[in-house]
Amino acid sequence: MPARNLLYAQSGGVTPVINASAAAIIHTARNSTAVGEVYAARNGIIGALQEELYDTATLSDAQVMALRHTPGGSFGSCRYKLKGIDQSRAEYERLIEVFKAHNIGVFFYNGGGDSADTAYKISQIGDQLGYPVQCIGVPKTIDNDLPITDVCPGFPTVAKYVAVSTMEASLDVMSMASSSTRVFILEVMGRHAGWIAAAAGLAQRQSDDPPQAILFPERAFAEQAFLQRVDASVGQQGYCTVVVSEGVRDADGRFLSDSGVRDAFGHAQLGGVAPRIAELIKGRLGHKCHWAVSDYLQRSARHIASRIDVEQAWAVGRAAVEFAAAGETGVMPVIERLQSDPYRWRIGKAQLADMANQEKMMPEEFIDASGFGITAACREYLAPLIHGEDYPPYAADGLPAYLPPGGCPLLAQKLPHWQESQRNTHHIIVNKMKISR
Amino acid sequence: MPARNLLYAQSGGVTPVINASAAAIIHTARNSTAVGEVYAARNGIIGALQEELYDTATLSDAQVMALRHTPGGSFGSCRYKLKGIDQSRAEYERLIEVFKAHNIGVFFYNGGGDSADTAYKISQIGDQLGYPVQCIGVPKTIDNDLPITDVCPGFPTVAKYVAVSTMEASLDVMSMASSSTRVFILEVMGRHAGWIAAAAGLAQRQSDDPPQAILFPERAFAEQAFLQRVDASVGQQGYCTVVVSEGVRDADGRFLSDSGVRDAFGHAQLGGVAPRIAELIKGRLGHKCHWAVSDYLQRSARHIASRIDVEQAWAVGRAAVEFAAAGETGVMPVIERLQSDPYRWRIGKAQLADMANQEKMMPEEFIDASGFGITAACREYLAPLIHGEDYPPYAADGLPAYLPPGGCPLLAQKLPHWQESQRNTHHIIVNKMKISR
Repeated sequence: MPARNLLYAQSGGVTPVINASAAAIIHTARNSTAVGEVYAARNGIIGALQEELYDTATLSDAQVMALRHTPGGSFGSCRYKLKGIDQSRAEYERLIEVFKAHNIGVFFYNGGGDSADTAYKISQIGDQLGYPVQCIGVPKTIDNDLPITDVCPGFPTVAKYVAVSTMEASLDVMSMASSSTRVFILEVMGRHAGWIAAAAGLAQRQSDDPPQAILFPERAFAEQAFLQRVDASVGQQGYCTVVVSEGVRDADGRFLSDSGVRDAFGHAQLGGVAPRIAELIKGRLGHKCHWAVSDYLQRSARHIASRIDVEQAWAVGRAAVEFAAAGETGVMPVIERLQSDPYRWRIGKAQLADMANQEKMMPEEFIDASGFGITAACREYLAPLIHGEDYPPYAADGLPAYLPPGGCPLLAQKLPHWQESQRNTHHIIVNKMKISR
Repeated sequence: MPARNLLYAQSGGVTPVINASAAAIIHTARNSTAVGEVYAARNGIIGALQEELYDTATLSDAQVMALRHTPGGSFGSCRYKLKGIDQSRAEYERLIEVFKAHNIGVFFYNGGGDSADTAYKISQIGDQLGYPVQCIGVPKTIDNDLPITDVCPGFPTVAKYVAVSTMEASLDVMSMASSSTRVFILEVMGRHAGWIAAAAGLAQRQSDDPPQAILFPERAFAEQAFLQRVDASVGQQGYCTVVVSEGVRDADGRFLSDSGVRDAFGHAQLGGVAPRIAELIKGRLGHKCHWAVSDYLQRSARHIASRIDVEQAWAVGRAAVEFAAAGETGVMPVIERLQSDPYRWRIGKAQLADMANQEKMMPEEFIDASGFGITAACREYLAPLIHGEDYPPYAADGLPAYLPPGGCPLLAQKLPHWQESQRNTHHIIVNKMKISR
């Protein structure tokens, strides 16, 4: 009997290196007899439900290597969480039908805590329906909030981008401060945990270096103390750099970015917290401010990838195939730190049941006593993650040689639908899911 | 008689490569007998007026080479324009006094059109006061709006950053579009001219590639046509990337970023045009949007410098010293394009009188008939400018080995004030200028 095929899907917010895991999976499986073909679902679990599957065997080795250095999710990702088996049994059964139809015996879900949960449930329903599926999670998330693993692939590159950008923009505002802009504010992602904001602290090589204030979602916004700190920094260094997490809240738990202001249409003003902080500083201290919101730029900045991050994203992909080849199911490869300096790490193995729906918050002791900076312990944790660069190759036009927009579904062969009757099922399910395409 | 000394100063908004020009000037002058010491003013012309001068001879060769790859203005820049000689004669006389006191016979002003004007006026007053000064402009501006020169050092790196970032963020939104964010909006600089917004168009390798819409300050915002274009792009490609210049105005000439909304303090909502566009799309088309404002990140992104830009920034610095050594005054080295493909360029020479206070707008024929894209002529102009990378070296901590915050004034020896009585003059002038430090 030929080895059963492997289905790979991407889930949730993408990262600059999620495709490096995909590339490692395809590359490793090509050299393994234990798994058959590697298929990929378009747009995550939605593509599996809709039977939109692609055969990665039709990608050339060069395309697989280009996948390694292309940001975004080249197969398409989704924000769609399967409910429990009791509530959504039809969806789970549909997945197993699709798996059966394409001789898929291994399912890899590349995502965060929700995806671990989904993969775990699929492994359970397969057993119940008499079609066992090996389900393996592949970790990724820029939020760095998965439990057990020391770090989540994707986060180190965002950390490097944010630290480098903070350093660069600070050199800019410092130049202008004598007669123009004195305060620069950078907004970064992190609605629940301040991991990304903390990474900006790596730019601070000396105690007075920027960023002089970091606003963490873990701390209620202390307006007076913050304004004092900004003013002291302008007084002493002539300028101030502020890094603010999008998730910062006031003492009552309200997001600062929710301005409450409505526009002419009556819509909530889409804020961004950086402009709010700029307003506050300008209004209360009189300093001219500039602000940036890095949004998707920070999580797609493959051009400044951390070498460690790319290595780890590759390693978890390769390990997932090795776990599959060894007959494992319900597991996820994770990163284990052996030591920080010099940095040593290895791949470990966690149970999906333990990874599912858990958020790892930033330790209390990573924020310093002022509430506006990181501690030595935080620095020790973060510093090795941004070591080394892994530049993408550049094309003759001066731009990175990324896979083209459209990604792998444009390049790989689509698998034929199992049978026409299935397409009807597919449409019914799609309608039930209310997914507009 | 020993050669007279050279005073270097930086002016206006800084660029990722203005320090490369500074490094070239110091390096070239060190190997020239025609000029004496290279002094640098802190914070541009303000430092010259205040006699805050630094001796670059005290910088090591390694520090000068680090200056070459450090973004921002490492000597400090300023937004301060000298008025005409008739109105501000005391300031001009003060400058000549400072020059006399330190045997400064050559003045280099590294800036845009205003700085060319200032340098030109200083050369005139020197002649009138019997202390001739060779005044030479060194071009820089990310706005790319100087006349005569084919391109302004600083712009190509911003262009590369914006094109790469547009490409990367588009790969991200494409991944998410099936079930989440469908439109990504990137706001870039350019209050008067759309050069930087146009550079995003370089990311478009194929006709349907992102960015699917660019909003130029040269075109009044056509809301209906824009919304149709966004919706068509979402319909056809599944997502849409919009790049918007901060200077976009409505048909009545009002900035779109001026929302007219006031916050709880009665202050104008510091808008950013990207969130306005996001609101509009969400409200009228219902698509989920993400938006980024790159602000200082775009103009300090030395980590993704265009190699051509660094070479040209170095070349104008070197040429300025060569002009000085040849006894020239009232001139500025400029970039002359010989051909676009393959790209060939050389240094030319322009008169400061012709450079002063002139803005070069983007040619009409660089914007396509739709008003939302660039033409082949625009692409031909822009494409060679982003060729090649010039990565900074990285330190052991995983961050670029830039000069530390504080820059050259921290590293170089400050020149003693000429004499105590001058300090009084200095204070009077500072008060008159109303420059708060």
